[in-house]
Amino acid sequence: MQLGTSQPRICVRRSQKIRCANSQRHHQSISQFPPMNQSVAAIILGDDSESRLYPLTKRRSEGAIPIAANYRLIDAVVSNCINSGISKIYALTQFNSTSLNSHLLRAYSGAGLGKEGFVEVIAAYQSLEDQGWFQGNADAVRRCLWVLEEYPVTEFLVLPGHHLYQMDYRELVELHWRSEADITVAVLNAIWDQDPGFGSLKITDENRVVEIKDKSTGNPKCQNTFDCHWFSSMGIYLINRDVMIKLLKESFPGANDFSSEVIRGAISTGMKVMAYPFDGYWEDMRSIGAFYRANMESTRKCNRGYDFFKRDSLVYTLPRCLPPSVVTDSLVTDSVIGDGCILNRCKITGAVVGMRTRIEDGAIIEDSIIMGSDIYEMEVPQNSVDRKCMSIPIGIGEKTRIRTAIVDKNARIGKNVAIVNSDNVREGDREDQGYVIRDGIVVVLRSAVIPDGSIL
Amino acid sequence: MQLGTSQPRICVRRSQKIRCANSQRHHQSISQFPPMNQSVAAIILGDDSESRLYPLTKRRSEGAIPIAANYRLIDAVVSNCINSGISKIYALTQFNSTSLNSHLLRAYSGAGLGKEGFVEVIAAYQSLEDQGWFQGNADAVRRCLWVLEEYPVTEFLVLPGHHLYQMDYRELVELHWRSEADITVAVLNAIWDQDPGFGSLKITDENRVVEIKDKSTGNPKCQNTFDCHWFSSMGIYLINRDVMIKLLKESFPGANDFSSEVIRGAISTGMKVMAYPFDGYWEDMRSIGAFYRANMESTRKCNRGYDFFKRDSLVYTLPRCLPPSVVTDSLVTDSVIGDGCILNRCKITGAVVGMRTRIEDGAIIEDSIIMGSDIYEMEVPQNSVDRKCMSIPIGIGEKTRIRTAIVDKNARIGKNVAIVNSDNVREGDREDQGYVIRDGIVVVLRSAVIPDGSIL
Amino acid sequence: MQLGTSQPRICVRRSQKIRCANSQRHHQSISQFPPMNQSVAAIILGDDSESRLYPLTKRRSEGAIPIAANYRLIDAVVSNCINSGISKIYALTQFNSTSLNSHLLRAYSGAGLGKEGFVEVIAAYQSLEDQGWFQGNADAVRRCLWVLEEYPVTEFLVLPGHHLYQMDYRELVELHWRSEADITVAVLNAIWDQDPGFGSLKITDENRVVEIKDKSTGNPKCQNTFDCHWFSSMGIYLINRDVMIKLLKESFPGANDFSSEVIRGAISTGMKVMAYPFDGYWEDMRSIGAFYRANMESTRKCNRGYDFFKRDSLVYTLPRCLPPSVVTDSLVTDSVIGDGCILNRCKITGAVVGMRTRIEDGAIIEDSIIMGSDIYEMEVPQNSVDRKCMSIPIGIGEKTRIRTAIVDKNARIGKNVAIVNSDNVREGDREDQGYVIRDGIVVVLRSAVIPDGSIL
Amino acid sequence: MQLGTSQPRICVRRSQKIRCANSQRHHQSISQFPPMNQSVAAIILGDDSESRLYPLTKRRSEGAIPIAANYRLIDAVVSNCINSGISKIYALTQFNSTSLNSHLLRAYSGAGLGKEGFVEVIAAYQSLEDQGWFQGNADAVRRCLWVLEEYPVTEFLVLPGHHLYQMDYRELVELHWRSEADITVAVLNAIWDQDPGFGSLKITDENRVVEIKDKSTGNPKCQNTFDCHWFSSMGIYLINRDVMIKLLKESFPGANDFSSEVIRGAISTGMKVMAYPFDGYWEDMRSIGAFYRANMESTRKCNRGYDFFKRDSLVYTLPRCLPPSVVTDSLVTDSVIGDGCILNRCKITGAVVGMRTRIEDGAIIEDSIIMGSDIYEMEVPQNSVDRKCMSIPIGIGEKTRIRTAIVDKNARIGKNVAIVNSDNVREGDREDQGYVIRDGIVVVLRSAVIPDGSIL
Repeated sequence: MQLGTSQPRICVRRSQKIRCANSQRHHQSISQFPPMNQSVAAIILGDDSESRLYPLTKRRSEGAIPIAANYRLIDAVVSNCINSGISKIYALTQFNSTSLNSHLLRAYSGAGLGKEGFVEVIAAYQSLEDQGWFQGNADAVRRCLWVLEEYPVTEFLVLPGHHLYQMDYRELVELHWRSEADITVAVLNAIWDQDPGFGSLKITDENRVVEIKDKSTGNPKCQNTFDCHWFSSMGIYLINRDVMIKLLKESFPGANDFSSEVIRGAISTGMKVMAYPFDGYWEDMRSIGAFYRANMESTRKCNRGYDFFKRDSLVYTLPRCLPPSVVTDSLVTDSVIGDGCILNRCKITGAVVGMRTRIEDGAIIEDSIIMGSDIYEMEVPQNSVDRKCMSIPIGIGEKTRIRTAIVDKNARIGKNVAIVNSDNVREGDREDQGYVIRDGIVVVLRSAVIPDGSIL
Repeated sequence: MQLGTSQPRICVRRSQKIRCANSQRHHQSISQFPPMNQSVAAIILGDDSESRLYPLTKRRSEGAIPIAANYRLIDAVVSNCINSGISKIYALTQFNSTSLNSHLLRAYSGAGLGKEGFVEVIAAYQSLEDQGWFQGNADAVRRCLWVLEEYPVTEFLVLPGHHLYQMDYRELVELHWRSEADITVAVLNAIWDQDPGFGSLKITDENRVVEIKDKSTGNPKCQNTFDCHWFSSMGIYLINRDVMIKLLKESFPGANDFSSEVIRGAISTGMKVMAYPFDGYWEDMRSIGAFYRANMESTRKCNRGYDFFKRDSLVYTLPRCLPPSVVTDSLVTDSVIGDGCILNRCKITGAVVGMRTRIEDGAIIEDSIIMGSDIYEMEVPQNSVDRKCMSIPIGIGEKTRIRTAIVDKNARIGKNVAIVNSDNVREGDREDQGYVIRDGIVVVLRSAVIPDGSIL
Repeated sequence: MQLGTSQPRICVRRSQKIRCANSQRHHQSISQFPPMNQSVAAIILGDDSESRLYPLTKRRSEGAIPIAANYRLIDAVVSNCINSGISKIYALTQFNSTSLNSHLLRAYSGAGLGKEGFVEVIAAYQSLEDQGWFQGNADAVRRCLWVLEEYPVTEFLVLPGHHLYQMDYRELVELHWRSEADITVAVLNAIWDQDPGFGSLKITDENRVVEIKDKSTGNPKCQNTFDCHWFSSMGIYLINRDVMIKLLKESFPGANDFSSEVIRGAISTGMKVMAYPFDGYWEDMRSIGAFYRANMESTRKCNRGYDFFKRDSLVYTLPRCLPPSVVTDSLVTDSVIGDGCILNRCKITGAVVGMRTRIEDGAIIEDSIIMGSDIYEMEVPQNSVDRKCMSIPIGIGEKTRIRTAIVDKNARIGKNVAIVNSDNVREGDREDQGYVIRDGIVVVLRSAVIPDGSIL
Repeated sequence: MQLGTSQPRICVRRSQKIRCANSQRHHQSISQFPPMNQSVAAIILGDDSESRLYPLTKRRSEGAIPIAANYRLIDAVVSNCINSGISKIYALTQFNSTSLNSHLLRAYSGAGLGKEGFVEVIAAYQSLEDQGWFQGNADAVRRCLWVLEEYPVTEFLVLPGHHLYQMDYRELVELHWRSEADITVAVLNAIWDQDPGFGSLKITDENRVVEIKDKSTGNPKCQNTFDCHWFSSMGIYLINRDVMIKLLKESFPGANDFSSEVIRGAISTGMKVMAYPFDGYWEDMRSIGAFYRANMESTRKCNRGYDFFKRDSLVYTLPRCLPPSVVTDSLVTDSVIGDGCILNRCKITGAVVGMRTRIEDGAIIEDSIIMGSDIYEMEVPQNSVDRKCMSIPIGIGEKTRIRTAIVDKNARIGKNVAIVNSDNVREGDREDQGYVIRDGIVVVLRSAVIPDGSIL
């Protein structure tokens, strides 16, 4: 790969084109490598924290948050794996794991993974040896090592679950194999205004990582120029099986964090750590603002965001058989509409409208995310528990206006409501009233009830 | 429903066979009947004819025709079965069975049918005993009897596959059981302007069928009044296993047609044939016109047509995981939009827009069915076979107007095309130009290419 | 509903026959009740403790322990649910949940559960509200209530996951409905030499529970006679949705245990608690000895144990497509042989031989459980990690004798080994040598390596 | 394999485009070829004839015949495809297709095939254009071309469905690609005592096929020596998409048979036809005798036959969750035992014992195939249809002896029966008595009833 100067001669094959390379002794072909699905197992770190995207994480882990109308956040990373031919996938989780577990089980248990493939959720658990919860991503992997070791793969690919990007991991793996690395770290090959939080790496001309700077210390900004030597780590690590076991069990048995402890340690002990540069679209869901932004990106026609329509790299998720959307006299602009919506004489601009969303006459939705509903609520609910909400059905009521907001699933927004952050609040906590404000965005809670005429 | 008068009170429990008895205090319950899924097997008659809905049947059997944006025609009947707890389902077919087979296999092989459930396609086949094709619906069932007998069900429910309606077959079965009938026939309990073609039944006050008039003879119109005695058969027959075997093999081994031969014969030999009246929405896809009409019914908001949104009786079909629809500046009125469409600055009124439909800037679609596409054609097609069509991508081109038309799947409609039946033709055959006209409706063929500027 | 008067005649409906009952006002029929799969959700308590069956629980939760050659322990309870028409099944777990999760996901994600059915694992998790692990079965249910409430079922059926029995829960539910109970508890209707540990219930002639005695207090033995009033609880509770919520959240928000706290409390506050008597085969896997015994029961031809061959109530588990067993010159007596074994000139008596077990020439297996292997190890293992075990392949080596032992999965037993508890030890810990002794039974650990010639 | 000599000119096909040519230093690798599952679709010819294996084909097509206890004949070829990474699989059929259809649907609809994979049965069908049945394998493919063209694969792999062998088709495809062939034919690289019936090919040193001799003309025996030039075709053809369309539609639109007409024609018109030599185990199920022999091969421990236990190339079939086999005091020698059998005090030598087989006390089975049962018949059958067979349950009765016989599924063999071909008949037709004799092997028909004491 041509990451530096004249010497290079690491030969990296990008999606369709070979950008390389001229070493004379370089004979061996990738066909001599084992198939991806038998060599590499992916470990998705389901959730580092539940507070980052609160209140969307109130009843679910990060990976289970609905995104782009039809998907869950974790689908992006799982789809990357499937499209890269990696079919042994573990998802480690300990925060509100149920909905994530349920989603992965239903979405990926059937097709897509081929023979011997699986997506397996490893929830934090109690055992005689380990009584506590996971203490960090390295600790989580360490405590699950006995499960991860089950299949005779030769590399583990550690992946944060809350990033939105399309990467063909085969390129990363191939670089790893060709350079005979112990560890390969993916790095952002572009200037980002915010730091992913996995530290910065100093890289030689041969792409070798020689130094790592912590996220805590002010880290040197990467300049995407030829003399640049500092890149932001994406928190994506391909680690040889033996190396992983040695690092976590022998060398650094007390390390809790990959970037600041394990990878740094590996470098310090002379292991060969390589960097794989990535320069596609990438978004870190580190805040409600970032989450909102990524959703908005998916609404522009020729968006520069995440591409859900790529034919060659499908985004997988739970298959559905919903009825088609029924639309009556509606003007829809720059929006994405999920399956099975009911749109009645409304105006929708720049919105992400999730599955089974019902919007009534005269409603106006602008620059907002409506996550939709888990059910159709066509008739009066039967059981007394739901009786009290009866008057306000799930969906958006007549003449309601919503602007720059996120409406979580199954919310019941009444008529003539205005969700417009009228007081221009930046951060606000009104959970008892069914919403909070984060980064200036009103977030209506899951299953919240907003009475007719409310102004938020 | 008229279940009889004061005397009867019959207690029937087949299968586990408590066949009691008639005491007055015996308020027997349906719970004494065996579970539906072990007692009844459904036999769906996939296709009587391929000419009725030609050219939609050119490369598929009737049941596989796309309907209401997200479905195939046969989904209605299969869903009725599943929602009625009938999970042993056979589909008999001999015309262009491949796409039907493929659809049923993919849509119903997984969930929905529970343990021991299946949807099994029985294609016409050659054997030493039978060299020819099926000679009629009764002949088809007769020749498949050895398959149908495999499971120890006690009744067979014969169903035409090309009708659109929602019926809870449990009621029909219960009537059958309670009245200890040999055969029960569903009849239309309302005035219909056209005859389904299965003959008319004369019915006593106790719902017993005493006479059957052929479709060929002019049949007496049913008046939905109390003194009415003639009803139109729906071609739906619940027949006891033993009775079925006896009728097809012993009594009428040469009969090819159920209504005119087998059922008539059963009545003549004194068997107990009952009628089950049905009065919900029902549409017979007997012509392109009827097919068009049924689709149009699904577009009105408070439609009186087939209800795809019923929570308690889902319509099943092939699960999909398509991206959400992307809509840019479009005005959509009284339409249904399938999954994963791309709508760019267009105007859609009274249309059924199928999965993956792409409509370009300035296009106007009115009162039409766009069946959509099997694939996304985002990039230039690679293989030479498709090269020639390259200039016109799948979908509806810019500034094209379509009115009162059916555009079959994967059609490539160029720019500035007008599909408006400009000459007001009623019937026309222009297959070489990619379309035909039926009942005044232009039908663009599957995969047809309509060049820029064409006027149809 | 009124199930009878003073004349006891508790009306229990056994498998196929109704044994009861004669009230005259008994009019309403069960058909007026909702279908089981929409009314009842099952909550399987995956594991109370990991020490009970240690070392079988070293790397898995109780429910995932292999049993009877082809199954996992939890399959018995899940199959009971499916066979009773209950298709919404939650499994709560916090000990070593991974293998249980993985098994349930693969075994039950596909068929068997019909539309809207699922088996969902709820692993203990961390949230802002609850930082700790589950504190008992009632606490576990309380903390998952928000998940359990998702579907509008009207009753919850709480089930211990480590019991082996075949019960048609429909009878229990029907008794519950007819008696309009708040809670119904299943009780053992026979004398058992050991107490299940869920307390004893004092029951009136009408089957109403009026008192509960703790397991801690010496509990009065149940005599299966007409004047007997004390029965052992099976830890199976059917609880109305509203009652469950009220008891766990309002009445006893600090209660951790169902039997001693919640049910006792319900009785004390005057709720209607009924008992459902059960008298089929039942085994509590409370110890290695009990587990061993239950497996041995399955080996006798006309066994009185758990019946895996019942046609009407299949035991479900992970479907497999293994090759047939290959047997060479072997004498097999009173044994069950799992799928895909390789038996070479060996003698097997009274053994449970699990899937993919390989037994070599001259080996003798008596009264033992061989759990089998997860893989076929036909060729030399490739990766260095496994290299060291190469000399001893997975399975039982030549001329090895095994008697009254349990050999966990993937163990590598060398040649001329004797696993016979030669010192007649009752309890022994030799984990470093790959085995322990419990209740006089040698338990070889999962993946243990027992060198040639060893005598255990 | 002979990959060509002096003129390098290797043609490498990149993802979608052909970038071929001829530099000497071009160490191209197979990784430059497109993935197998997107490039090649397999077409399995389900059944040429139903008489060959009659009476096993009486109620099923050849591919659905049970083999080796747990499998169906077609599983071998489908598994070859899956193990070779080919996941688009069509099975063409017209004889008794129902059971084949049902098997493929249930066995392969779920896993194993990965994303975009399928096994699709194309049954012969009637259409306006084609009223008749398939007239030969080339005619069958021609009439299904419109279906086969659906996916943009670049090669079709035509496979007979009734052969038993393990081939990695990737090698064949690679040879095809490297040699830039139009067609590649697999040939038997060894001496076989019988001719597969697909003609003999004369081959140059470069593996190019220059002549084809019909099966009808006496064909020259292949000598497996270096100067040998005649090889037997296996009827396996890899044909470029364009070539297939050209040959079937333009060049030889009337050809019905591949070997004698299409391939011969291709050679005559100068197309490049290559041969791929295969020398593994291969068995052609051309007769009851061959079928019997292939089954017997699977019973020897170190068999030289088809290997069902290969770890890297699993044989796929319908997954099952049957109970383990229960064996009481039985001596089993050189046999394979399917899942869920019940063996009571019997002696089994050199037998293939299929799923759910029940063998009673004192029975002796030698050198025979017992295909097993579709159900457990534990209790008295309920419905009158089965009443008459009640006295003789499915399975093998007490003290019955069976030698050199095939017992088809669900047969009911009474007590003290001797199936030993006592009269030493070579061919015999006694279908009315429930069996026929072929090649000296007694074949008991499916569901036949053989009364107590019968001697066959």
